[in-house]
Amino acid sequence: MTTRRLHLNAFLMGVGHHEAAWRHPRTEPARLTDVRHYQELARIAERGLLDSVFLADGLALQGDVRHNAIGGLEPLTLLSALAAVTDHIGLIATVSTTYNEPFHVARTFASLDHISGGRAGWNIVTSAGEAEARNFGRERPAHADRYARATEFLEVVTKLWDGWEDDAIVGDRRLGQYADTGRIHPADHHGTHFRVAGPLNTSRSPQGHPLLVQAGSSEDGKEFAARFAEAVFTAQQTLAEGQEFYADLKSRLARYGRSPGELLILPGISPIIGGTEEEAQRLARELEDLIIPAYGLAQLSHLVGIELTEDDLDRPLPAIPVETEGAQSRRKLIIDLARREGLTVRRLLGRLAGGRGHRVVAGTPEQIADQIQSWFENGAADGFNIMPPTLPDGLTAFVEHVVPDLQVRGLFRTEYESRTLRGNYGLPRPASRYTASRAAGAGQKARVDVAVAS
Amino acid sequence: MTTRRLHLNAFLMGVGHHEAAWRHPRTEPARLTDVRHYQELARIAERGLLDSVFLADGLALQGDVRHNAIGGLEPLTLLSALAAVTDHIGLIATVSTTYNEPFHVARTFASLDHISGGRAGWNIVTSAGEAEARNFGRERPAHADRYARATEFLEVVTKLWDGWEDDAIVGDRRLGQYADTGRIHPADHHGTHFRVAGPLNTSRSPQGHPLLVQAGSSEDGKEFAARFAEAVFTAQQTLAEGQEFYADLKSRLARYGRSPGELLILPGISPIIGGTEEEAQRLARELEDLIIPAYGLAQLSHLVGIELTEDDLDRPLPAIPVETEGAQSRRKLIIDLARREGLTVRRLLGRLAGGRGHRVVAGTPEQIADQIQSWFENGAADGFNIMPPTLPDGLTAFVEHVVPDLQVRGLFRTEYESRTLRGNYGLPRPASRYTASRAAGAGQKARVDVAVAS
Repeated sequence: MTTRRLHLNAFLMGVGHHEAAWRHPRTEPARLTDVRHYQELARIAERGLLDSVFLADGLALQGDVRHNAIGGLEPLTLLSALAAVTDHIGLIATVSTTYNEPFHVARTFASLDHISGGRAGWNIVTSAGEAEARNFGRERPAHADRYARATEFLEVVTKLWDGWEDDAIVGDRRLGQYADTGRIHPADHHGTHFRVAGPLNTSRSPQGHPLLVQAGSSEDGKEFAARFAEAVFTAQQTLAEGQEFYADLKSRLARYGRSPGELLILPGISPIIGGTEEEAQRLARELEDLIIPAYGLAQLSHLVGIELTEDDLDRPLPAIPVETEGAQSRRKLIIDLARREGLTVRRLLGRLAGGRGHRVVAGTPEQIADQIQSWFENGAADGFNIMPPTLPDGLTAFVEHVVPDLQVRGLFRTEYESRTLRGNYGLPRPASRYTASRAAGAGQKARVDVAVAS
Repeated sequence: MTTRRLHLNAFLMGVGHHEAAWRHPRTEPARLTDVRHYQELARIAERGLLDSVFLADGLALQGDVRHNAIGGLEPLTLLSALAAVTDHIGLIATVSTTYNEPFHVARTFASLDHISGGRAGWNIVTSAGEAEARNFGRERPAHADRYARATEFLEVVTKLWDGWEDDAIVGDRRLGQYADTGRIHPADHHGTHFRVAGPLNTSRSPQGHPLLVQAGSSEDGKEFAARFAEAVFTAQQTLAEGQEFYADLKSRLARYGRSPGELLILPGISPIIGGTEEEAQRLARELEDLIIPAYGLAQLSHLVGIELTEDDLDRPLPAIPVETEGAQSRRKLIIDLARREGLTVRRLLGRLAGGRGHRVVAGTPEQIADQIQSWFENGAADGFNIMPPTLPDGLTAFVEHVVPDLQVRGLFRTEYESRTLRGNYGLPRPASRYTASRAAGAGQKARVDVAVAS
């Protein structure tokens, strides 16, 4: 009926995704904590009609700050300031289920959803790292425990979001009735990890539920995504890997009574764009020449779980023990990449510097669009997570040169369909479970798929 | 040397502080979750050169939502959206130390301080209520425990804020050095309530420490304020009470090596403003006529800790047991008010409806200004916490009619002194403890009072 359309998210990362971006003359690293930098990025993305912007996050100073521009802003606070200067673009923040409370998280996302008029999304992470645990007086949690907690966390948060039905607020001044308290429900949750009474002290937000996003690619991660996520960010290096991941994840949805269209898969791509292929390759080399091996070695050691030194630089990647905790799927991707292409550690560092394991494509706008089209049309992607190597110029180049090409090909929108994130992602607005069960009880069709007016 | 100047904070509360505000034709209760409503309020306050806006908060749906417009937005998310549309006004959010983690709180306020260019303030509360405890799977904490936790919380948060020294970021692109890691310090905190490694993953913010604000008036609360707070919001009904509180709190500062000027005391005042005294009284009566006794009874029962019914309405307030947990200072204030003026419960409800125990003054702009001047010049206030009965019109009236009068009297600024909250409150910017101790170690004067350039 309707043409299948690509969805594009701009992954905003300081002054760029390339680890040496801050050293390149195209960037201004002093803007790392300047809200106007991020407001400019959001406006560029909105000018390009992108679906959303996304901020990653961790709860510790990770990576070597001696050699990289890190130490920026907390995502939710930042996105609220971006909401104030944009009208259509979705705003997706990363928040951990391991070091937060469901009541706070439910309320803060509901607030961002109100503030943005229905544009909030939550990238759910479970915080694998040791450093994060030590900022909250905890031991590093086991992988399975993290996902068990995350699952219960989501049950509580969605129950809290549903607590105020859409028609709970009556606002009858004459009678003095503000709300119909029969339409406001406590959560009354008594579980393994949480006891939460509710209801929330923030009314139901425009999207009902802010969009749920996820990025883990472990077995537990994929199962969690199949159950809860509506969009998934993933790192896939080759079309074959992309297809395998796509088919695998989509096939899991039926177990949870969901159809394949209810979850969008967006692989990461770092486009290094030039007017000619040579220009793109030159920019790629300029960035590679600015890499600091000590920085990359520390990052890679952390990712693969063994200590690498400068002596390893010109040798192949040593054997890596298979069974270690956390970030397993990213580790496998890196080992596969090194083996497949026979890379030395130094060459591997060059490949990872662009996107930490995400796919890097250097070329003309047409070549980038070809790659996007190929994955989109061959069962590997519903869209892409765009990770410009340098910011803001890399996002501007994408919006000004790649987006128009995708539009000409009929793959991408020429105007926003909606003012909500769900509306642009083509996803339904969930009805409150209490409204739905009352409707079902009354023998009526449950209002589960009522789209919000755009 | 310089003239002592009044400080004014606008306490933003939905569509007004009067509990019947939402029923009055001057307000639009549907704007409770509309960010533009709050952006308009912040701009009005900034037009009036007020020092700051402030948002109260609780972590449960408290009060009877059947009869009042509650269920609004989370303060930090909201203030970030206000930062985006203002330039000078301070932004003070309430956050609890009982149901939060110091790492999150330190980081979020540092982010808001960056986003606002140095305008963030934290109103520290310890969450006495039963309903709040039940949203976090906890028992209601004892009064003393709450303050013990709050004290350690503040130690951790300020240590985290100090972790990045002002000159930690080097940004040397050529050498590839982003930060001087010798100027970034872990917190290494191992205490009774918290173990926090640090450092923060957000660099030092413009104010160094966002402004610390407090509002508890119990013994523990006053002692906590004397140690940490730089501004105190308080409820005082009479000049004599105001003077007593002011002298008491200021006298406690010396114990912590602080001088009286390092803490500003701002009593609450709800100004019901009319062009004539009759007009002001008419508005006061209109609001009083819209009060729903059942709502006020539930609120009052909660505040005084005994169950009051409609049968009590036309009798004096019954005897109240002295020893109960939480909100003790507010309880005493209410009992004193009822006894002093011989009020029936119904009359007491009328008095409390305007400001929940804060002082309500109905009159002309000149009469309001007289009251402000009298308290300011007679040792009861360094400024005021302005609580308009209806919003936005009550704030507009204050800004357009009372502020000019205060300016003519030479009591209030005619332009902002600074772009930071500390700058406008006339308070110093704290140096990082690590910078200060190094300077002291090198035999130099510690840089504790370096004001930030406005």
